[in-house]
Amino acid sequence: MRTRFHQSLDDLKEKLLRMGGLAEQAVDRAVDAYRRRDVAMAQRVFEGERQINVMEREIDELALDLLAMQQPMAVDLRFIIAVVKINADLERVGDQAVNVVQRVLELAKLPEAELNVDIPRVAEVASTMVRTSLESFIYARPDVAESVLKMDNTLDELNAQTYHAMMAVMQKSPDLTPQALNTLLISRNLERVGDHATNIAEDVIFWVRGADVRHQFGPYGTSANVS
Amino acid sequence: MRTRFHQSLDDLKEKLLRMGGLAEQAVDRAVDAYRRRDVAMAQRVFEGERQINVMEREIDELALDLLAMQQPMAVDLRFIIAVVKINADLERVGDQAVNVVQRVLELAKLPEAELNVDIPRVAEVASTMVRTSLESFIYARPDVAESVLKMDNTLDELNAQTYHAMMAVMQKSPDLTPQALNTLLISRNLERVGDHATNIAEDVIFWVRGADVRHQFGPYGTSANVS
Repeated sequence: MRTRFHQSLDDLKEKLLRMGGLAEQAVDRAVDAYRRRDVAMAQRVFEGERQINVMEREIDELALDLLAMQQPMAVDLRFIIAVVKINADLERVGDQAVNVVQRVLELAKLPEAELNVDIPRVAEVASTMVRTSLESFIYARPDVAESVLKMDNTLDELNAQTYHAMMAVMQKSPDLTPQALNTLLISRNLERVGDHATNIAEDVIFWVRGADVRHQFGPYGTSANVS
Repeated sequence: MRTRFHQSLDDLKEKLLRMGGLAEQAVDRAVDAYRRRDVAMAQRVFEGERQINVMEREIDELALDLLAMQQPMAVDLRFIIAVVKINADLERVGDQAVNVVQRVLELAKLPEAELNVDIPRVAEVASTMVRTSLESFIYARPDVAESVLKMDNTLDELNAQTYHAMMAVMQKSPDLTPQALNTLLISRNLERVGDHATNIAEDVIFWVRGADVRHQFGPYGTSANVS
């Protein structure tokens, strides 16, 4: 019984990582769509969102089944709750990718403008944050999670740069306002991807530290390691 | 034991409603700050955010304690998971209020501009959505939750109106770009408040419908009502 339970915990973890893969892929595709004004690629992001939404519910249901299966130990409870929370954030990373491609579809209708802004760089930091937050989860490493929090400062700075640059464009060349505004909003969407990665990192810290505390003082198990 | 558990479920629900009250208050104060360019009121929103963050962790810990207390029935598990998810959304409603007041602080530095945009109206719809989503939770009413999903269309429309109106201002009067852009971003933050209310409503539907299914087919309890 205990073994079957732990097998299911592993399944839950693996499903969440697949969900993370879909969310990352959505962001990468959205930025690709941006870079190449690629409407077909944008379409794939919309389709991917449906898949992500279905997966979110599957993971929640599996988490509920696990909670119902037997009396889980405190350390496992924390893990399952962390999965439920991380799951919600990954779904919203997917939503942000959709928001990006909605802007891309607007941009595709407009004449191209040389805006001197590095959206792929912003996206790279945001994607790295998502990937690193999932790594901190896989290896139960709060120190890796902490590094995500630091990356968020970089992302905020890049986003602030975009903001000021696009504001300047809009004031100097009002005819480029639609292009500049859509670009600014894409940058903000990517900043929000980073915010979700930050939430995930905080959940990992909450989970592992809490597990440690219970390991030290509580009546439960011998290890804070969950899989 | 069973009674103590249900008492604790009530506590959890009550705490979540208090959290909801704080989140609503944050939005109301942020819009007040916007309306009166009130920097002191903006400050209170920043302070309130810390309180909201502390409360979020308290609710998560209480949820974990409840899961650990005894083998909860499936219907109660679903309820607790719904609380954890709603809790995260309410915390982010608070974050959006903070984003609004950051824009208000920017606006306060700029000359006032008559922008012909009705932010308080956008805020009213967003606040109503949060309040209604919490009502659907209190009374376990998926039909009330559905009404929140409909309100989201109104909010999206209002936000689209702001977007086009502010775009027009920026193109016609580039000197008003900072004011118009900050106003546009406030409108988007309020739209996101509505998105969180939508998430809450979806969680209520997930919880109640799931509870109903288990009530009909499962081996558990006599009622999908949890308190």
